Amino acid sequence: MVGLEKLFAECREVTDKALDELIPLSETEPKKLHEAIRWSIFAGGKRFRPMLVLAVGRIFGAEDKQLWRTAAAVEMIHTYSLIHDDLPAMDDDDLRRGRQTCHVKFDEATAILAGDCLQALAFQTIAEDESLAHSVRVKLISEIARAEGTPLGMVAGQYFDLEAEGQSISIQQLERIHHSKTGAMITVSAQAGAIIANASASDFQAITDYSVKLGLLFQITDDLLDITQPTEVLGKTAGKDLVAEKATYPSLYGLEEAQKLAEKVHAEACQELDKIEKDTEILRLLVDFILHRKA
Amino acid sequence: MVGLEKLFAECREVTDKALDELIPLSETEPKKLHEAIRWSIFAGGKRFRPMLVLAVGRIFGAEDKQLWRTAAAVEMIHTYSLIHDDLPAMDDDDLRRGRQTCHVKFDEATAILAGDCLQALAFQTIAEDESLAHSVRVKLISEIARAEGTPLGMVAGQYFDLEAEGQSISIQQLERIHHSKTGAMITVSAQAGAIIANASASDFQAITDYSVKLGLLFQITDDLLDITQPTEVLGKTAGKDLVAEKATYPSLYGLEEAQKLAEKVHAEACQELDKIEKDTEILRLLVDFILHRKA
Repeated sequence: MVGLEKLFAECREVTDKALDELIPLSETEPKKLHEAIRWSIFAGGKRFRPMLVLAVGRIFGAEDKQLWRTAAAVEMIHTYSLIHDDLPAMDDDDLRRGRQTCHVKFDEATAILAGDCLQALAFQTIAEDESLAHSVRVKLISEIARAEGTPLGMVAGQYFDLEAEGQSISIQQLERIHHSKTGAMITVSAQAGAIIANASASDFQAITDYSVKLGLLFQITDDLLDITQPTEVLGKTAGKDLVAEKATYPSLYGLEEAQKLAEKVHAEACQELDKIEKDTEILRLLVDFILHRKA
Repeated sequence: MVGLEKLFAECREVTDKALDELIPLSETEPKKLHEAIRWSIFAGGKRFRPMLVLAVGRIFGAEDKQLWRTAAAVEMIHTYSLIHDDLPAMDDDDLRRGRQTCHVKFDEATAILAGDCLQALAFQTIAEDESLAHSVRVKLISEIARAEGTPLGMVAGQYFDLEAEGQSISIQQLERIHHSKTGAMITVSAQAGAIIANASASDFQAITDYSVKLGLLFQITDDLLDITQPTEVLGKTAGKDLVAEKATYPSLYGLEEAQKLAEKVHAEACQELDKIEKDTEILRLLVDFILHRKA
């Protein structure tokens, strides 16, 4: 597990440095808007999506200088979605990553606009990344916009999720929610590394299939943690799925079956890695880590 | 004025057809989200920004098939900003273009997500525009993201505007608000036409300076209309700047001086057009129209 911990620490450093460079300083007008953006993006996130960009890109031979801006861009999009999802009209959450959410620390208008800016800055960052060919930048923007928007991306998933609250839904519907809400951005982060490194079509497919499984595993374990761990450990409000009567893997499958499903998905992810003739050990450690994580 | 009316009608048709093609249908899941997007984007807007893309692009020799997707993209960004600006936490407006605003017709969560999707779709549309070279798409995305975001774009301007409510501000501050809030997207729409048509550096500069004046003229007349026209004519709540104690050109200059300033800015815009050795008559008619508009 040493290799993975090292990678996580290194990716946090690379990503945080990139974000600090790319996001306007709090001294730049409008100051409070930039302060709010920085409050949310430097809240101690795991930098899971940037790590996928970096890990996959390196496996297929990309240099770090080609990867860090895209890594920062996917984190900007992830953070904008958290800021908007936490708003009173949406999930109405006061706590995120162990501290006040953006609209609580600042106000709702600031939170809405901070999210909007982060989305624009993400696409600007990739469009202006001179380490990448124009065709690569265009491909990345297209894929990330699709993974983020509608009808198949993260925002559509958030919408499905809101619609499903308090409703009885099927396993198929639950999978559609997560495939779009969390899966799409996880998958595109891994794909982005492969796109930048110009991976072969078959490697790109294996990375895609691996990351779909990874996203699913991430969601199942997220649902499990929500009911098995307290707020202090999670750094966000525990048990909120139960309160909101949200359908989750444990609520549909039961706790034990949901745990078994996580193990099955973990094994399938590993099978995808076997198809790649490169050193993918770090991606194997990653699914091990997600399966066994405690927060 | 016949040429301009014809152009407006034609641009509305081209833009609406493009938007209809590019935005997921209301029958596509999540249906209510797409219905909300379509509610706001097909609300009878003037398609002023798309018209600039088309008019400028044509002047410098671009073909319509190279222009219509970018024209639709700038309208998507404009509409997303209207949806978010109308939210209760922001300008709290119930009426827009003569009909219920998105969060009134649907709900706040839907309005927030509809805006988010439209922004993603705008960048996706340009990234996937196969009529344009990759380098042109990248340039457009970079410029539009800057014009839209922070610290110099539309969202920063909206933030300055919210901060200024009820405050006494200087003419310089008022100009900064409008230069970013409405000016930046108007300017980038004109620039986009010039970028697609590969206009010369000096023509690009003249178009930029013209459109900065055009944006300023648009804002001054907008402020004038807010106090001189009733709600029925405007299609949005009249007198709301007064109610919100917003600083406007008439409130800082007085009605008569604001009118004179509009005429001065109109003349300066025309001087920029004189520098361009192409038929720019339509852009001259456009500033005439803005100066004399009644809604």
